[in-house]
Amino acid sequence: MTATGRPELRLSGERFRATYVVAGDEQAARACADAIAIEQTLEFSPDLVGRPDIIREILGRVEMVRPLGDGRAEVTLSYAAESAGGELTQLVNVLYGNSSLKPGIRLVEVALGPGLLEAFRGPRFGRAGLRGLVGVFDRPLLATAVKPMGLDPAELAALALAFARGGIDLVKDDHGLADQPFCRFEARVTAVAAAVARGSVESGRRCLYAPNVTASPATALARARFAKAIGAGALLVAPGLCGWDTVRALAAADEVALPIVLHPALLGPLHLDPNHGIAPGVVYGLLARLAGADAVVFPSFGGRFSISSADCREIVTATARELLGIAPCLPMPAGGLTLARVAEFVRFYGPESMLLVGGDLHRHGADLAATVRRFAAAVEGG
Amino acid sequence: MTATGRPELRLSGERFRATYVVAGDEQAARACADAIAIEQTLEFSPDLVGRPDIIREILGRVEMVRPLGDGRAEVTLSYAAESAGGELTQLVNVLYGNSSLKPGIRLVEVALGPGLLEAFRGPRFGRAGLRGLVGVFDRPLLATAVKPMGLDPAELAALALAFARGGIDLVKDDHGLADQPFCRFEARVTAVAAAVARGSVESGRRCLYAPNVTASPATALARARFAKAIGAGALLVAPGLCGWDTVRALAAADEVALPIVLHPALLGPLHLDPNHGIAPGVVYGLLARLAGADAVVFPSFGGRFSISSADCREIVTATARELLGIAPCLPMPAGGLTLARVAEFVRFYGPESMLLVGGDLHRHGADLAATVRRFAAAVEGG
Repeated sequence: MTATGRPELRLSGERFRATYVVAGDEQAARACADAIAIEQTLEFSPDLVGRPDIIREILGRVEMVRPLGDGRAEVTLSYAAESAGGELTQLVNVLYGNSSLKPGIRLVEVALGPGLLEAFRGPRFGRAGLRGLVGVFDRPLLATAVKPMGLDPAELAALALAFARGGIDLVKDDHGLADQPFCRFEARVTAVAAAVARGSVESGRRCLYAPNVTASPATALARARFAKAIGAGALLVAPGLCGWDTVRALAAADEVALPIVLHPALLGPLHLDPNHGIAPGVVYGLLARLAGADAVVFPSFGGRFSISSADCREIVTATARELLGIAPCLPMPAGGLTLARVAEFVRFYGPESMLLVGGDLHRHGADLAATVRRFAAAVEGG
Repeated sequence: MTATGRPELRLSGERFRATYVVAGDEQAARACADAIAIEQTLEFSPDLVGRPDIIREILGRVEMVRPLGDGRAEVTLSYAAESAGGELTQLVNVLYGNSSLKPGIRLVEVALGPGLLEAFRGPRFGRAGLRGLVGVFDRPLLATAVKPMGLDPAELAALALAFARGGIDLVKDDHGLADQPFCRFEARVTAVAAAVARGSVESGRRCLYAPNVTASPATALARARFAKAIGAGALLVAPGLCGWDTVRALAAADEVALPIVLHPALLGPLHLDPNHGIAPGVVYGLLARLAGADAVVFPSFGGRFSISSADCREIVTATARELLGIAPCLPMPAGGLTLARVAEFVRFYGPESMLLVGGDLHRHGADLAATVRRFAAAVEGG
């Protein structure tokens, strides 16, 4: 019993760990870790709590402080598994919610225990499932997008037909294709799905079409159902725009049951500042898998976005890190990749990847199917 | 007709404007603006499009480049209203989706036209509606939170009762209270709502209770319905955790029809870097109102978070900026405010605000109702 006469908190004892990189020498880092411990749990001065059991169980625990020798330190905290309440929103909240409003604190690693992970189903297909769907087991998958915004459904379908004929594994909508009056979602998805099906028959290989269903939660689910009914083979969704739990709801919808491809729109601020935010591996690896992504598009080095090859390596590692039964997802480097550099990307990313080449496929002549075959040859040769 | 024989795009001609601060001198800024124009719309090389009408209508238009004299420049672009497709997700995507993945680009201002704004209902109550609910018209509203995580429903209810007895205008859940096994959502909301109702009767003034409903979209809506049925007077929700459209769905739910209070958890990375992300006024003003927030909690200067008074001023201005019929929302400075500094905050924020004092209310003796009366007196005196 506590001093107030109430029974003490009785928790499982399972804790999850979060590692942050913080600014400052060892002493400053320790003070920062103590502040994180409070901010992420009690958000209340421990001396005012008057309940030793709450201090012991709920208050974040500083498990380690390790100076990095460059004016920063790594600090590891642990939190009661129960504080996450079995919800992704609250898990992320405990990991970084309020501390995200302070400078000089970056979440770089997360380790979750079995009790907490039970709440998460993860990817429905994962790497192996995706490979099974397209029948490709020994090389990187090939992907591209239909665009630009402004084309009508028939024009986008013509592009998709050529890509599928050429033997590409996945055609996604550009993430800027939503439900605009000049290209309605249902008309587009109907036309492109039919084109991809026809192209697959002609090539003799199954190509997946991933329409963009990013929207409000209810609309995203309605679009996913429509996409499923009309024969789409996957879904594209941007958690930065619609929230991670909207992705999770799409992945969990048994009546949809399509592979989920994540798009990184608006996720830049979450990971771009090396001294703040959340490390790319946590975003595109852990969060993506907890949300149920089967493949995750991310800006690759060597394109028009700003990300180091070390960050890309970290993402790749995180997409397959052991996570107690939660399947690995397929990393999908993108953002200005060119055919000329495909061999280099194949060497870097290895076979467990899906290479997304967009605009550059249009730079090699009008016969897009032939260009896809060149893309495939470059991947095989890489 | 276009060269491909298709009818030309016919759009309304309405465009919305976005202003970015970018790194570089005038020439570099112009190149950056051109890159943003492509990235946010076509995501495709204009020379490959072959459709002059798409280039003319869909491609972002650089309207202005203005060097700031400090190695940065302000660039204003316009986009076709139709490219946003009437959806908040796609509007944000066009404004900043992919460009968020590049360094040195910050979205600082947005101007939307009437056709686009028609899709947004905005706050159901707004400042005036909130004031009407609590019957306070001439001073800042007073708010606090029940916490810490770890207390059970009866303990939280006891705190809420004291706050309401003291005459506080709004009691919110700490944003870390979700549906943990040691404090279930329904038990907590039932107990706290009853306590706030009783305290309101005793004080003779209406106090609103805002339970935290942040969760997956479906769960958030279910919790909001429960909260409404049990007598809660408002809802707390964190868009950084659950997505802006989950907020919008809560605000739009006619069977709920409760004021929406936004919490800033996980929004830090969106606005903290002065050379990247989205300016606080756009986040806590424009986006909050488009999502339907009636009040918006943000980290104030003078507390434990890192934000300048200039940023706070920008937020306050943005919560009331003319937005074609979309109601202003009430700015709710928070994050370590103390009674000792209330007068200063009243001077800075003026009457059109809601001051959120949390932990400090517990630092002035055991009689929390008396402390709330001191809080009220300090606000009246300020």
